[in-house]
Amino acid sequence: MVRVGIVGATGYGGAELIRLLAGHPHVQIANLYSSSAEGEAFDKSFPHVSGLGLPDLMPIDAQSMSEDNDVVFLATPAGVSAGLSPQLMELGKAKVIDLSGDFRLESAEAYRTWYKREPAPAQWVQKAAYGLTEWNREQVAGASLVANPGCYPTATLLALIPLTRSGWVKPGSWIVDAKSGVSGAGRGVNLGVHYSEINESIHAYKVSKHQHTPEIEQELARQSGVESFVQFTPHLVPMTRGILVTAYGQLETKVTQEQVQELLESTYADKPFVRIRPAGSQPRTKEVLGSNYCDIAAHVDERTGRIILLSVIDNMVKGAAGQAVQNMNVMFQFPEKAGLPLVPVFP
Amino acid sequence: MVRVGIVGATGYGGAELIRLLAGHPHVQIANLYSSSAEGEAFDKSFPHVSGLGLPDLMPIDAQSMSEDNDVVFLATPAGVSAGLSPQLMELGKAKVIDLSGDFRLESAEAYRTWYKREPAPAQWVQKAAYGLTEWNREQVAGASLVANPGCYPTATLLALIPLTRSGWVKPGSWIVDAKSGVSGAGRGVNLGVHYSEINESIHAYKVSKHQHTPEIEQELARQSGVESFVQFTPHLVPMTRGILVTAYGQLETKVTQEQVQELLESTYADKPFVRIRPAGSQPRTKEVLGSNYCDIAAHVDERTGRIILLSVIDNMVKGAAGQAVQNMNVMFQFPEKAGLPLVPVFP
Amino acid sequence: MVRVGIVGATGYGGAELIRLLAGHPHVQIANLYSSSAEGEAFDKSFPHVSGLGLPDLMPIDAQSMSEDNDVVFLATPAGVSAGLSPQLMELGKAKVIDLSGDFRLESAEAYRTWYKREPAPAQWVQKAAYGLTEWNREQVAGASLVANPGCYPTATLLALIPLTRSGWVKPGSWIVDAKSGVSGAGRGVNLGVHYSEINESIHAYKVSKHQHTPEIEQELARQSGVESFVQFTPHLVPMTRGILVTAYGQLETKVTQEQVQELLESTYADKPFVRIRPAGSQPRTKEVLGSNYCDIAAHVDERTGRIILLSVIDNMVKGAAGQAVQNMNVMFQFPEKAGLPLVPVFP
Amino acid sequence: MVRVGIVGATGYGGAELIRLLAGHPHVQIANLYSSSAEGEAFDKSFPHVSGLGLPDLMPIDAQSMSEDNDVVFLATPAGVSAGLSPQLMELGKAKVIDLSGDFRLESAEAYRTWYKREPAPAQWVQKAAYGLTEWNREQVAGASLVANPGCYPTATLLALIPLTRSGWVKPGSWIVDAKSGVSGAGRGVNLGVHYSEINESIHAYKVSKHQHTPEIEQELARQSGVESFVQFTPHLVPMTRGILVTAYGQLETKVTQEQVQELLESTYADKPFVRIRPAGSQPRTKEVLGSNYCDIAAHVDERTGRIILLSVIDNMVKGAAGQAVQNMNVMFQFPEKAGLPLVPVFP
Repeated sequence: MVRVGIVGATGYGGAELIRLLAGHPHVQIANLYSSSAEGEAFDKSFPHVSGLGLPDLMPIDAQSMSEDNDVVFLATPAGVSAGLSPQLMELGKAKVIDLSGDFRLESAEAYRTWYKREPAPAQWVQKAAYGLTEWNREQVAGASLVANPGCYPTATLLALIPLTRSGWVKPGSWIVDAKSGVSGAGRGVNLGVHYSEINESIHAYKVSKHQHTPEIEQELARQSGVESFVQFTPHLVPMTRGILVTAYGQLETKVTQEQVQELLESTYADKPFVRIRPAGSQPRTKEVLGSNYCDIAAHVDERTGRIILLSVIDNMVKGAAGQAVQNMNVMFQFPEKAGLPLVPVFP
Repeated sequence: MVRVGIVGATGYGGAELIRLLAGHPHVQIANLYSSSAEGEAFDKSFPHVSGLGLPDLMPIDAQSMSEDNDVVFLATPAGVSAGLSPQLMELGKAKVIDLSGDFRLESAEAYRTWYKREPAPAQWVQKAAYGLTEWNREQVAGASLVANPGCYPTATLLALIPLTRSGWVKPGSWIVDAKSGVSGAGRGVNLGVHYSEINESIHAYKVSKHQHTPEIEQELARQSGVESFVQFTPHLVPMTRGILVTAYGQLETKVTQEQVQELLESTYADKPFVRIRPAGSQPRTKEVLGSNYCDIAAHVDERTGRIILLSVIDNMVKGAAGQAVQNMNVMFQFPEKAGLPLVPVFP
Repeated sequence: MVRVGIVGATGYGGAELIRLLAGHPHVQIANLYSSSAEGEAFDKSFPHVSGLGLPDLMPIDAQSMSEDNDVVFLATPAGVSAGLSPQLMELGKAKVIDLSGDFRLESAEAYRTWYKREPAPAQWVQKAAYGLTEWNREQVAGASLVANPGCYPTATLLALIPLTRSGWVKPGSWIVDAKSGVSGAGRGVNLGVHYSEINESIHAYKVSKHQHTPEIEQELARQSGVESFVQFTPHLVPMTRGILVTAYGQLETKVTQEQVQELLESTYADKPFVRIRPAGSQPRTKEVLGSNYCDIAAHVDERTGRIILLSVIDNMVKGAAGQAVQNMNVMFQFPEKAGLPLVPVFP
Repeated sequence: MVRVGIVGATGYGGAELIRLLAGHPHVQIANLYSSSAEGEAFDKSFPHVSGLGLPDLMPIDAQSMSEDNDVVFLATPAGVSAGLSPQLMELGKAKVIDLSGDFRLESAEAYRTWYKREPAPAQWVQKAAYGLTEWNREQVAGASLVANPGCYPTATLLALIPLTRSGWVKPGSWIVDAKSGVSGAGRGVNLGVHYSEINESIHAYKVSKHQHTPEIEQELARQSGVESFVQFTPHLVPMTRGILVTAYGQLETKVTQEQVQELLESTYADKPFVRIRPAGSQPRTKEVLGSNYCDIAAHVDERTGRIILLSVIDNMVKGAAGQAVQNMNVMFQFPEKAGLPLVPVFP
């Protein structure tokens, strides 16, 4: 059994990792770490896991972390991993899967601009593998440090990469209008997640300013060889889980619905967690809730010459903890689906 | 007191008209009509209005309708008004405010294509005034038949018309990503409005096929003199009321946030129900709930050369019954704000 | 025009007072007070009221408050009014309507036990009128200081008083199982109002310990002449507004549904804001949302010998700001319905 | 591998069985049956399971059902199993687990009174084992036909049986105030599950008339030897999944919180799906969502002499499909937890 440690266990990302790893056939949850609640029983923070026999929360210490685990998941806010992961890498024992954005952006300048803080050391940023499993499996398999993708980039990239690579869509024309449930904002308390403010309402936030924008642009460029801007707008929806991305691209050439369908289906034919939905589908976030699926549908609008892509994930699973487990499976040569629920919770 | 009749009173649009008109200082709710529940007490369908002393439901009959009312609101499904309104017009007494789409599209061909049914007689379609009050006040003031705008077109057009007229935005570049609460789907029962299917989920619907698309294109063309396509995608959000429109336009020229702000503020300076929010605002649907406001914010993205417009309304009020009352106020020379709540219900 | 001041204007209770008073024909919102946001424009906290021309927020000062207002509403947390209201009373000019619990409990001991803090000065507690308008109108009419009832006591007492006075129900047998929306918890931020924690969930809180328990017991005793315990359990429901009280009483004698119906209907025949629903009704909180109504239905269960009462209010209106305005109307001899919306917002 | 058939697969109960059984290590989903959608692919009704390779829907036929399955789950409306299960029993091959109420009530008279239809043949009702696994394991282990308990009775009985058996609570004093999510109403469409009617609202339904009342009374009597009435009131809460039962009992004797805690903990010490929460807990339905747990907390109110029990389940899991799988595990001597998720989906 591989020994797993989770840092930031008292946040939602950490709790979701526990849900998935507790049922994983090849791992043992060996250690839980928290800077805010050390020494406490984990189910004091999260009564839903009482009775599972989880270890108590421990303080964060790189040395013991490295010794006591085969792999460490960092489910921590931006900035923590930038300091901690290099220490773990230098100690050289435990592998690291980082769920934060600290190792995703190759450009230090971009990190400073969008995250408003200092980036992680460049040498380790360069060694990190970007963990969009379906497109980066080889790098992930050989990596000691994986930068797990952001929730929005995951839903966006899985839909946009095939079309961008095809050359059918005008570079720079992508407009990504994304809608997310509230759990993506984490467990911290502020007026922005107050029930009475969020319920029965929808709004856009961080218009033109969201830090997932450069991550999407970087990976689209890497996969297609063409640099271009992506217009990205996130919205907060009165639901707990789920992301829907509605993306609009200008077609450079006349393509049919059938061609697009064929492209997507062949691209993901052997990928167990991407489901290309039939022509005409309009997938709902609820149809992937609790699972590691990304469901994608394409609509060619012949009238306007555009393609509209719809992509749904559970932001806590494929958008965070699930993809992290999928990457661990690849890194340790477990079956890719190990420990990942196959059927969404519906309704 | 002006005598008011409401047809389709047992739907949500009818019920909302009653909420607003019951508190209107210059009208009397004289008659309620329903094809499905004639003879019944209205509060049997809607217990929330019990004790208001409303008239019982009557069968639909053009002759008596025309005689017993000064103005008739039609809150009926597509197709009903196409038959009934011409009869009322020929009888020549009661004015008509039609909340359906039957008299909004000038092109019979467009109506057939998008509504999949036969249009109303062309002579009456031509005489109908399109009731986007802020942009069509004069026509509305003199009209006997008003085509009250659709909910999506209202939120979209109030935001897009000033920018489209300015010439700053490339024709044909508008992409309108709209999000609506469920009440817009009406009170009819089907799996598409089943609580367990809608709750904790979001999805797009009628992608490239929604009948409000030609209405938006027609009015943008009329106000700007330039015909062009608009890409329109509606989404269903797990909330009862509210529409948020996020619209993206490609700038043809370099304009600043200040110029856009100034344009919008001056355009709507004397319009009591349009509020231009300060630069940087990201309005929430909840901030207009229950009121007749349309709140608009603009974001110029210098990096991508685009403008993003955010526009929120309560689909039942400014998107339906409230704008209908506003149009009645103009038609009967009442103060424009008469009977319309000034403060949204928050939280 | 009566000049009104509102203290604690940046909470939900204050905002709701503004919604109601902004449309009130006989008052002017003269002053808004806040200890946390003085000097700021009110719509910085609450964009939904932008454009209303409200006064900026002022610091709390008893002297100027007393001089500049005819009546002051205190929408403040427990403990504030205990200090401020006696000052205002001694200054002797402005009347006070206190929405907190500071002047509701006659027993200082009970206040200490349930509120865990020191009570207000006994002399002023004795002079305060308990503002359950329907049962205390005369006292309210002559009062300078009104203790506006709690949200749960309002919904509970309006249902239970008639049955308790009738002698049909065994003293001490009342079990009150109450369900509330989240807005009752106020605008402060904590994990207990975090969207992701509340959504898609229901739970009981303060079981056997809620401070509204002695308020209910005190008023039932006052109205019926018999002291007894009430079992009270509040629950938090994933909705913003609304309270449903389900109350169970053991019948001492055989009474019929008709007798109960007749008792309730005659008791409230001339009360504009209490609606007795027909036998068999199961009222929904949504049917009073945004309005000052309390809707009540009774079910006699012959099999078990119990009566079940259902009572719904909007906790922000009849449970707080609406009843406060109703009390102001009585104190200033305005029509009781002045400024209070007659039709709930449905759906 | 045990071959499993599911009847009524296109309802929510059927879909939830598929979620659980698809991940079960010892069974194979061999056949899906539906009277309304035969011949169709299952994922046409439920896109969330696309890609699982499920069998197409087949017509309901007792003969082939019996031959092609080792066990058949009936997730059908009341009345269907009454006819079908006896046929399957007579054919004598496949075991049956019935999720409907048809075989739960021993008294034919009670079934007629509360279900308003004719009961199943008495001989088979007598042979059916009531599948409250924790209290009836031996009978379930030897049964060919299991009557899976109702959702409300499951949450209620697991909490009430130990206290009722203890003799500490006055017979006939139990008042059960239950709150349920909407999925319990099934997938059929009607105004009672319309999103706009349910959202932002709570209401009681079937007051004194719900068919789970006699089921609760029967099993309490069986386990305690004392017949008595239970007052049961269900409520509909704006959430999809979850049941909270708040139960009130009059104590006959003075017992302490510690005694109650000890009683509950020892009763369920070896039961993997019942978690007794620490004294003072107020469990939330969300803390068991998606899992087979029933979490119970007790509150002794010394002031009033009552005990308040709080019990939460996921109505689709422990309240239906999960308990059915648990019963199957017992019937086929699989480990009791096989195929049942151990960690709730939170948040």
